Amino acid sequence: MKIARFSHEGDIRFGIIDDDEVVVLANDPMFAGYETLDERLPLSEVKLIAPVIPRSKVIAFGRNYRDHATELGNEVPAEPLMFLKPNTSVIGPGDTIVLPPQSENVAFEGELAVVIGAIAKNVSAEKAESVIFGFTIANDVTARDLQTRDGQWSRAKGFDTFCPIGPVIETEFAVIRQHIVTRVNGDVKQDGPVSDMLHGVAELIEYASSVFTLLPGDLLLTGTPAGVGPLVSGDTVDVTIEGIGTLSNPVR
Amino acid sequence: MKIARFSHEGDIRFGIIDDDEVVVLANDPMFAGYETLDERLPLSEVKLIAPVIPRSKVIAFGRNYRDHATELGNEVPAEPLMFLKPNTSVIGPGDTIVLPPQSENVAFEGELAVVIGAIAKNVSAEKAESVIFGFTIANDVTARDLQTRDGQWSRAKGFDTFCPIGPVIETEFAVIRQHIVTRVNGDVKQDGPVSDMLHGVAELIEYASSVFTLLPGDLLLTGTPAGVGPLVSGDTVDVTIEGIGTLSNPVR
Repeated sequence: MKIARFSHEGDIRFGIIDDDEVVVLANDPMFAGYETLDERLPLSEVKLIAPVIPRSKVIAFGRNYRDHATELGNEVPAEPLMFLKPNTSVIGPGDTIVLPPQSENVAFEGELAVVIGAIAKNVSAEKAESVIFGFTIANDVTARDLQTRDGQWSRAKGFDTFCPIGPVIETEFAVIRQHIVTRVNGDVKQDGPVSDMLHGVAELIEYASSVFTLLPGDLLLTGTPAGVGPLVSGDTVDVTIEGIGTLSNPVR
Repeated sequence: MKIARFSHEGDIRFGIIDDDEVVVLANDPMFAGYETLDERLPLSEVKLIAPVIPRSKVIAFGRNYRDHATELGNEVPAEPLMFLKPNTSVIGPGDTIVLPPQSENVAFEGELAVVIGAIAKNVSAEKAESVIFGFTIANDVTARDLQTRDGQWSRAKGFDTFCPIGPVIETEFAVIRQHIVTRVNGDVKQDGPVSDMLHGVAELIEYASSVFTLLPGDLLLTGTPAGVGPLVSGDTVDVTIEGIGTLSNPVR
C-alpha cells in the first residue's frame, strides 16, 4: 500500500494511493490504523507533502555502499557509520532544495529510507521488521566542502531543506534488488541496487536501536550508491526506487 | 524567574519556583505565557522533570573552552564545532544516566544550555537575545572511546540518558562570570567561568540559526570547561551553575 500525506483545500490529510486517486484516511495511519473515509480525490488535485515529519530524528548511515565509499577515497567502515539529520531539514516532494551561502559544493545522495512505526529499543535484527512502518525515498543532501572542513557532519547534512523525502510510504516494500536511480535534469547519475548495501536494513535497525530509542516516524537513511555529484541552482534532482516511486525536487 | 516542569499526582505541570514552593502555571509558559493558577505546592511534594523536551533538536558545541580543547589534545576550532544530540537522549534531574554496554569510558561534561523560545532562522548575534527563552544546565554525557573510534559523534553523545538537563529554566540569567562546577560524588572535577567560552551565546545562536531553523524548546549546549573525566556505576554527578541551581544525576 502506498500511503500519502497531502494538503487539500488547506487541510493536511492522509490517504492510500489507488491509481490516479487517493482514498482518504480518517487519520494518520501510523497511529490510528487504516480507517478510510467515503471520499476519493484525484491525485492531480492534491499536493503530496513529506509523508512523515519525524518527532525525533533522522538517523543516517554513511559509506554503506562500497562503490560510494571508495569513490570519495574513504575506507569501508567495519561498523555502520551513523549520523543524525534534524527533523527541520525534512521537505517533501516538489519542495525546493535551497543552496546555502556557506557552501560552494552541494551534492545529492539518493537513498532508500526506512520509516519506523513503533517505539523501539534494543531490537534484534531478527525482529527488526516488526518496527518498520514502511519505506520511502530520501535525498541525503550534503554540503561536501563543509563535510570535509567541519569533520562533524551535522552542519553539512543538516541545513534546512537538506532531507527531501517521499513521495509516499510503501508499506509492502521488500528489499530485494531494486535500483536506486538518481537523475539530475534527466541524466542518470546514480544507479545501484539496494542489495549492494554493506549493512542491511535489519542490521541498521539493530545498531541504531542499541543506541537510541526509536520513535514512530523516525527515519533511517540507509546510504547512497556510487555516482554522487554536485547540484546547482536551476537543477531538478529525481530519485527513483522501483516499487516506491520518484522523489523530485528543484534546486535554487 | 525559575520555571519548573514537574510531575504531581500523575500529571505533568509547569510552575514558577518561589523559595520552597512552586506557583502552578496554567500551561507551558513557552507557548502560553505566565498565567498562574491559585495553587501553590511545596517543592518537596513535586518531582522536577526535564524542564523541556525539544520537539526538534539538541544542538551542541565542542571545544568551546580553550582549556578543555587542549586537555583532550585538540586544536581550538576557528569556527564553532557543532553537532547534534537527539531529543531521545534527554532526561531530567535525578534521572539515572545509564552506562551502555558498548562503551568502557563514559565521561561527564557540565555545560550551560540555552533554551530557545521562538521559531528562528538567520538570527544575527545582535538579535540573538530575542529568541532565548531562558537558560538551564546540561550534562553532555559522552562515550569517549566511541567518540574517538567512530569519528562522527552521534553515537558517542546520543545514547538514551546522555543529555540530563535541569533542574529548572532561569529566564533572567545573564551570562557574566558564573562558574560551571561539576562534582562527582562531591569532589570538584570541573570549575570554570562561562566567560571563558570561545564563542559566546549570541554567536552560537547566529551560527546555528544560519544552518537550522530553531524551534521553541530546542536546546543549545554551549561547551564544557576543563576537567572532564569518567563516570562509573554508583557515581552521582552534580553540575552547578550559580543563578540556576544544581543538576544531579546518579549513574548506573
